[in-house]
Amino acid sequence: MPYDHDISACFAARIGDGGLDEAEFEAALARTRPALARLRAWHADGSLPLLALPARSDDLAVLQPLIAEASAKFDRLVVLGTGGSSLGGRTLAALAPAAAAHVHFADNIDPDGFEHLLGGLDLHRTLFAVISKSGGTAETMTQFLIAFEAVRAAVGEAGARGCFLLVTEPGDNPLRRLGARHKLALFDHDPGLGGRFSVLSLVGMIPALFAGVDALAVRKGAAQVLARTLEARDAAASEPARGAAVQVALAEARGVATTVLMPYCDRLGDFAMWFRQLWAESLGKGGKGTTPVRAIGAVDQHSQLQLYLDGPRDKLFTLVLLDQAGRGRRVEPELVAGEPALGYLSGRTMGDLFAAEQRATWDTLAARGRPVRVVRLDRLDARALGALLMHFMLETIIAAELWGVDPFDQPAVEDGKRRARQSLAGAAEVPA
Amino acid sequence: MPYDHDISACFAARIGDGGLDEAEFEAALARTRPALARLRAWHADGSLPLLALPARSDDLAVLQPLIAEASAKFDRLVVLGTGGSSLGGRTLAALAPAAAAHVHFADNIDPDGFEHLLGGLDLHRTLFAVISKSGGTAETMTQFLIAFEAVRAAVGEAGARGCFLLVTEPGDNPLRRLGARHKLALFDHDPGLGGRFSVLSLVGMIPALFAGVDALAVRKGAAQVLARTLEARDAAASEPARGAAVQVALAEARGVATTVLMPYCDRLGDFAMWFRQLWAESLGKGGKGTTPVRAIGAVDQHSQLQLYLDGPRDKLFTLVLLDQAGRGRRVEPELVAGEPALGYLSGRTMGDLFAAEQRATWDTLAARGRPVRVVRLDRLDARALGALLMHFMLETIIAAELWGVDPFDQPAVEDGKRRARQSLAGAAEVPA
Repeated sequence: MPYDHDISACFAARIGDGGLDEAEFEAALARTRPALARLRAWHADGSLPLLALPARSDDLAVLQPLIAEASAKFDRLVVLGTGGSSLGGRTLAALAPAAAAHVHFADNIDPDGFEHLLGGLDLHRTLFAVISKSGGTAETMTQFLIAFEAVRAAVGEAGARGCFLLVTEPGDNPLRRLGARHKLALFDHDPGLGGRFSVLSLVGMIPALFAGVDALAVRKGAAQVLARTLEARDAAASEPARGAAVQVALAEARGVATTVLMPYCDRLGDFAMWFRQLWAESLGKGGKGTTPVRAIGAVDQHSQLQLYLDGPRDKLFTLVLLDQAGRGRRVEPELVAGEPALGYLSGRTMGDLFAAEQRATWDTLAARGRPVRVVRLDRLDARALGALLMHFMLETIIAAELWGVDPFDQPAVEDGKRRARQSLAGAAEVPA
Repeated sequence: MPYDHDISACFAARIGDGGLDEAEFEAALARTRPALARLRAWHADGSLPLLALPARSDDLAVLQPLIAEASAKFDRLVVLGTGGSSLGGRTLAALAPAAAAHVHFADNIDPDGFEHLLGGLDLHRTLFAVISKSGGTAETMTQFLIAFEAVRAAVGEAGARGCFLLVTEPGDNPLRRLGARHKLALFDHDPGLGGRFSVLSLVGMIPALFAGVDALAVRKGAAQVLARTLEARDAAASEPARGAAVQVALAEARGVATTVLMPYCDRLGDFAMWFRQLWAESLGKGGKGTTPVRAIGAVDQHSQLQLYLDGPRDKLFTLVLLDQAGRGRRVEPELVAGEPALGYLSGRTMGDLFAAEQRATWDTLAARGRPVRVVRLDRLDARALGALLMHFMLETIIAAELWGVDPFDQPAVEDGKRRARQSLAGAAEVPA
């Protein structure tokens, strides 16, 4: 497996009262069995497209040459989309920071911010990917309509045709109709894939490929984790099931209300934002769920660690660690000669410090009796990232089963959308 | 005042059981009086430098021409620093996004990320500001030593002298000694200003000025909020006191464990990160405090809102709103003619949608019985940002008094630092 999943510091035997008893964990793990059976059934009958994606390559075979051609023609890709239409692509593109500098994600509708983005683009050399599952997302449609008008003004209607690529569900919806009317390239968003579970589909792969990320390797990493869970003879052999059991048992038995995902690598910062949506929208319903928090090590050692160590005992920490010992440049011994307080840095690389701090945070949290699990990567590449993505999607789906909620809906947010449309439309006209 | 502070939707009369009774609020507000008296005493005797900063301009008179000169000479500023040495400067620089693109903040020690940053710099045209209060922060010293060696190799020892500007406490410490040895520019970090309270000092103002932000206006906004609190005849006349009372009363009486700060403007994204450190490090001790969470509207409507509306009732929401109605480009009516589902967008600007969504989120949270307060800005400029910064610093200090904790220390994080040094140094050598 491309990662190691160590939950030992979530147990009372290691961290005292704040940890789980073996019996509590085993009971929660046993409760994951129906979810595992359901995943197997969904995989077998193809009813959950998420579980079919890792093994697919047909769609990538079509997409890859198209994006290669686009990459030659366009300097930049701007993804117009929000929530699940943005976070997965960001996560994948971040794997290749140099290339990702050419991929922008516009997910807000602050007019100042959007104007700043538009104003900085060469519209002759920018490809826009417009992603909205429903084809009617207010923010994305507004971004698209404004960007389309700007591009049309700059390069003409005919030229604008080649500058947009739309991703939306099949069937009839506003985005699809507009795309057809203006002859824009249209790709199908699988109706069976919710935004927060769409990272392995073309929703994530379009930006990933533009950034030069190995899409097939991402899928292979995901496939490996999925296979292990589907083939698990008992729940203990599935890391996502063990993760879900730890999360739910700590919430139920130890009052854990917040789940902190804390990667140390810069390139995993967006991954933690992706997880935040996945966990919150899938589980935060009917009073259930815990609050996901993104933290970044070593940065948040200087911002949140005081609270984590000495504040309320209401958190589970998941550290995502990569051993970078020996990597990066070395602190020149001559520079710190005669500075005993800095002797520990002499001849060390930045990666040595990084490794030491990762380990220290783990040990310190455990020593303070705070439950902390560690996902350890040997290397951070497309395959490992794919594995992480699948791990956390499965963990979330299994946790939903334990909490008795539907991981695939988000019923509460419709009210706010209706209110916003209502206020814009005025009393006269209120589309459903 | 540059902002309006509306706490009405934190009360039971408006939102039902999840809100406060008037009596609960009044009791908490009454408990803020000792903190207000202490702030007045600290202001009068000058013992808390934070409270003297808003009225100062002498330091800016020295700094401004220096930074103006540097801006002419250097294309980029790279701030090496972490926690409070980074977050305040980021917050201020973000006010001017076009210029802020030339200011980088290196706060992590991921060797891949730092190498990527260094590799992208023209070292002849880059100014490094190295900020460490203690002068011994492991991450910052490592960044500095590696960057100094790189610059020295690129431009020579003499040239490197002009490329660094160090900010650290007076007295003897490693950074100061290294600066003196290599004849680098040295600025004093006020020993009485903790990092998370340093935004109004040169720690924040160096990046702010480089980004072209009006430093004096930031201080004036802060001064206005400070004056109102110092002059308040009763606690109800101080918005920070009312804010602290709401925060603490909701935590104590209604089980609120998480405080969500959710600005809508892109330019306030870093402000919410700054608040997150301020609140967590100041209050998260002895089992006290609540967990600060940054959310960004409208983005997190598509990520966290489901949880906020329908998950556990353990959160207070603070929305920071700016009325952008009428701002930005308009959705061309011709484009959406014949699309009834998009009729509500026809002729509307992006700012109109932004305004409607802000209002809708406020109303929806309140309608679901979730406590939500609103900080409303007429405009977002340096003065308004200075006011927000002072508001939240005072609110935090007052909340600390209510919880009986010291807002200015961070005792728990020393253990982790010691462990990291120990592991790097090996058994032989463990600096204190």
